[in-house]
Amino acid sequence: MSGTNSERELIAEGPAIILVEPQLGENIGMVARAMANFGLAELRLVNPRDGWPSEKARSAASKADHVIDQTRVFQNLEEAIEDLNFVYATTARERYGFKPVRSPVVAATTLREKFRAGEKTGILFGRERWGLTNEEVALADEIVTFPVNPAFASLNIAQAVLLMSYEWMKTGLDDVAATPFQPVEQRPSTKEQVFGLFEHLEEALDARGYFHPPAKKPKMVDNLRAVISRRGFSEQEISVFRGVISSLDRFPRRWPKKTGSAGEAPENGDA
Amino acid sequence: MSGTNSERELIAEGPAIILVEPQLGENIGMVARAMANFGLAELRLVNPRDGWPSEKARSAASKADHVIDQTRVFQNLEEAIEDLNFVYATTARERYGFKPVRSPVVAATTLREKFRAGEKTGILFGRERWGLTNEEVALADEIVTFPVNPAFASLNIAQAVLLMSYEWMKTGLDDVAATPFQPVEQRPSTKEQVFGLFEHLEEALDARGYFHPPAKKPKMVDNLRAVISRRGFSEQEISVFRGVISSLDRFPRRWPKKTGSAGEAPENGDA
Repeated sequence: MSGTNSERELIAEGPAIILVEPQLGENIGMVARAMANFGLAELRLVNPRDGWPSEKARSAASKADHVIDQTRVFQNLEEAIEDLNFVYATTARERYGFKPVRSPVVAATTLREKFRAGEKTGILFGRERWGLTNEEVALADEIVTFPVNPAFASLNIAQAVLLMSYEWMKTGLDDVAATPFQPVEQRPSTKEQVFGLFEHLEEALDARGYFHPPAKKPKMVDNLRAVISRRGFSEQEISVFRGVISSLDRFPRRWPKKTGSAGEAPENGDA
Repeated sequence: MSGTNSERELIAEGPAIILVEPQLGENIGMVARAMANFGLAELRLVNPRDGWPSEKARSAASKADHVIDQTRVFQNLEEAIEDLNFVYATTARERYGFKPVRSPVVAATTLREKFRAGEKTGILFGRERWGLTNEEVALADEIVTFPVNPAFASLNIAQAVLLMSYEWMKTGLDDVAATPFQPVEQRPSTKEQVFGLFEHLEEALDARGYFHPPAKKPKMVDNLRAVISRRGFSEQEISVFRGVISSLDRFPRRWPKKTGSAGEAPENGDA
């Protein structure tokens, strides 16, 4: 699941991610990797404990060098956000304030709207151990918090950045159901092709006395056709099935059947 | 941002997470932590390279012991999913097959529907280095893939599990805009309270000759009232502002003003 690819589009835009007093270089690197996966590129650090640059961060970033190389360091949070127009603070703890509290989906939608309007935005993430101070939260416009398990709320900063980056990316898609690749296109079968499968199968079974007793044949045919019809097989799939039936129908076994094999079914399928 | 809390509801239900031949105990632990954050609890391992149990996994799980303690190990993927009704395979690579490919949002919605209908489901995640084989993907019903940066697709298994767990959690919410806590409730102000603020402020300014020249006063009052009105201040906020105006209006400074201080504004606000 990895690899930069220089021939494909490198998305690098959107809100700045601001880490306040991060402690471990590994975490900063994982944050850069999370950002790069979802098209963010602007990382700002306020007073990183172990200094900057950091080889541990670069290593953990897993080749997100375009993020690491442009990371900027600030002495305090005010300087880190002074050029921005709108800032979210992430927090897991209730703050008992008047500041609006948003879900990641709503926050990402707001960030995308402001991005499209030309505003500069950012998202604050606090220290590994205890997050942001109330004074730091007060510098932001709104709060964003994650819908976590009430009895197990333990997101680290790289995970929190990953989720916000992912929601940001999704707001840029025309359709949340869109996927980067699709299955091989299949042509829907025509009824003529479906009827062809019915006749092929029923003739081969009839020739072996499957429809027994004869009075039950109409009901058995109904059931068999219902099983096939409800699947909505494509043209290609019908072709696969006809190949299977032809093979079973025409050719003798090349080796004797094992007794009690797993695939063995009841002889008569009208149960 | 951490801590289990035994007095709050521990959510532990939903699809099984199946890791195929995971290598590092740390990754298994981070997967357990990601799952626990978003209410999943059933972890299955197919042939973990370094065996099981794993102290590294337990340590990285950050107290997600309820997941680690119940993790089950299987010899092969068939056994690991034999009791399930519906299985997704996660993959970042195009597979050129007929299997439907879904986005995380669509896959999570499908998993929630099947969960509510009483079906047992699972999600497969491949090896750290190279994911799932085609034969393993073939055992699943559908494929799920993430909307990543085309030129930087580098999600590790713990990140991929985090995103699917998060989408699963969201499908259980009545409203994606819901948040675990809300700001202090505020009462909308009445027009009488807004007019009270207008008068209070304008009287204090008028007493200082702010509205100058007098011919401009009506326009200046209009501008001032527009600035206040468009904010939609709450009752509590209007009360805060009236306290500020009272303080500025009634009391003398206790220390001399610094020259060139940052907060100084032009004397006349009608620009």
